[in-house]
Amino acid sequence: MSLHSLDEATALNPIAEGLYEGHTSDRYWNFAGPFGGYLAALVISAVLKDARRLGPPVAQTVNYCGALSKGPFRVTASIDRGGKATQHWSVRLTQGDSTVTTSTIVCANRRETFQHLTVARPDVPAADAVAPAFAPPQFAWIGAYDFRFVEGAPLFAGKPLPEGQMGPSRTVVWMRDKPERPLDHLSLSSLADCFVLRLLQMRGKLVPMSTVSMTTYFHATEADLAAQGTAHVLGVADSKRFADNFHDQTMDLWGANGALLATGVQTVWYKE
Amino acid sequence: MSLHSLDEATALNPIAEGLYEGHTSDRYWNFAGPFGGYLAALVISAVLKDARRLGPPVAQTVNYCGALSKGPFRVTASIDRGGKATQHWSVRLTQGDSTVTTSTIVCANRRETFQHLTVARPDVPAADAVAPAFAPPQFAWIGAYDFRFVEGAPLFAGKPLPEGQMGPSRTVVWMRDKPERPLDHLSLSSLADCFVLRLLQMRGKLVPMSTVSMTTYFHATEADLAAQGTAHVLGVADSKRFADNFHDQTMDLWGANGALLATGVQTVWYKE
Repeated sequence: MSLHSLDEATALNPIAEGLYEGHTSDRYWNFAGPFGGYLAALVISAVLKDARRLGPPVAQTVNYCGALSKGPFRVTASIDRGGKATQHWSVRLTQGDSTVTTSTIVCANRRETFQHLTVARPDVPAADAVAPAFAPPQFAWIGAYDFRFVEGAPLFAGKPLPEGQMGPSRTVVWMRDKPERPLDHLSLSSLADCFVLRLLQMRGKLVPMSTVSMTTYFHATEADLAAQGTAHVLGVADSKRFADNFHDQTMDLWGANGALLATGVQTVWYKE
Repeated sequence: MSLHSLDEATALNPIAEGLYEGHTSDRYWNFAGPFGGYLAALVISAVLKDARRLGPPVAQTVNYCGALSKGPFRVTASIDRGGKATQHWSVRLTQGDSTVTTSTIVCANRRETFQHLTVARPDVPAADAVAPAFAPPQFAWIGAYDFRFVEGAPLFAGKPLPEGQMGPSRTVVWMRDKPERPLDHLSLSSLADCFVLRLLQMRGKLVPMSTVSMTTYFHATEADLAAQGTAHVLGVADSKRFADNFHDQTMDLWGANGALLATGVQTVWYKE
């Protein structure tokens, strides 16, 4: 049985406890580097593989410190503090002496408790009823996912909007790994960054921009993941404020059966 | 001129570059330890004081790894990667050999660019028209702020709601430091955690619970901070999902003149 491209691209070779070597994969390449969700998956992968892990991840912050070049890299993962309920990790991805990505990850011992949901999944047509989006071949990573836009499809560069006009800040999209892959924390970690940056989405104008930091909270219970299987996830992205080189971005990932699987935020740098 | 209690409580004594000693303050104590906003302010303080800092902070993630005991502590702050536009920091607060808090902070060189706001501040009565809330004296930190609840005032422990009934998940509250203090990134960092945990808010029942990780994005421009001065900030808090020992919490901090000053999220552990 061959590995799924996500597992192949995030494979890490253990050198010592908490120390891994890896090699970049072209499958998740964007333009100047891989898409950020690939880096998020790479660093969480080091914790997911670690025998010292307490339980599933509940929170991940990824800081995008510098560009990842094609070639080898190292990942270190260490436990800052462990307890019965939670376990705090710091993870770092380096190339030579340069830090490419830092990440803090919280794992936990999760058991059934009080459950509540204050919001409902947007009422949209099922994934099967929405046409798959065209994947521009120059961005390899987009071809690694099946995107079906319900609302706020991306306005790609080269088609700037008329002066003074702006696209919507909100996008609602069904998405899943291509080929299909059962949903787990590794894929949730990368799906959290599968949204076109809101500034590009709204202005339809490509200026230098990149995600600087991203935080994802994993809400999915084991039963939610099992029920989800390889079905599409419904992603909702939006932003609130754009000012002085930075904008925020929020996202929700919903399961096919209405479970809220993950929520997250990111802050994005843009040049002008 | 005497220092404001926030500055006094977050004072750090420099030992070497990126190494500080400090001592806990009772002013921001909760029950088992200080309120989380005090720890957020302590760790950002180490970066704010550092001569190597590129510019204002744009993002802060704080991981609450263990309890802070009354007494001395150390803070280390190191630069993971620096550039012309952004600078990535890792900060750690320790007591003896134990890590109490880890934090990643992004600072940036911010200049005027494209500006946009997709949402408007909730339309509520001015702070002066809302009565200050009673501060229960057993929680010192609550007395360090002036809270004026517009919507979703906290239901304190000891007054559980009738079985099956639940309080609102959303709170809208005017708040500021007491005594007044001109708003800056230090105070925004702590105000981000000034909301009663949503689980307690909704169930009115005190079970063991605590914030595990918090992320704050600072949107305020220099002009926004100058315009704000010592006026009240309007805070809005809410949550989406509660499941298997964890719930998320979101927050927005609005300026008196309608500027969105900061947005953030946190994930909260609860026992049952």
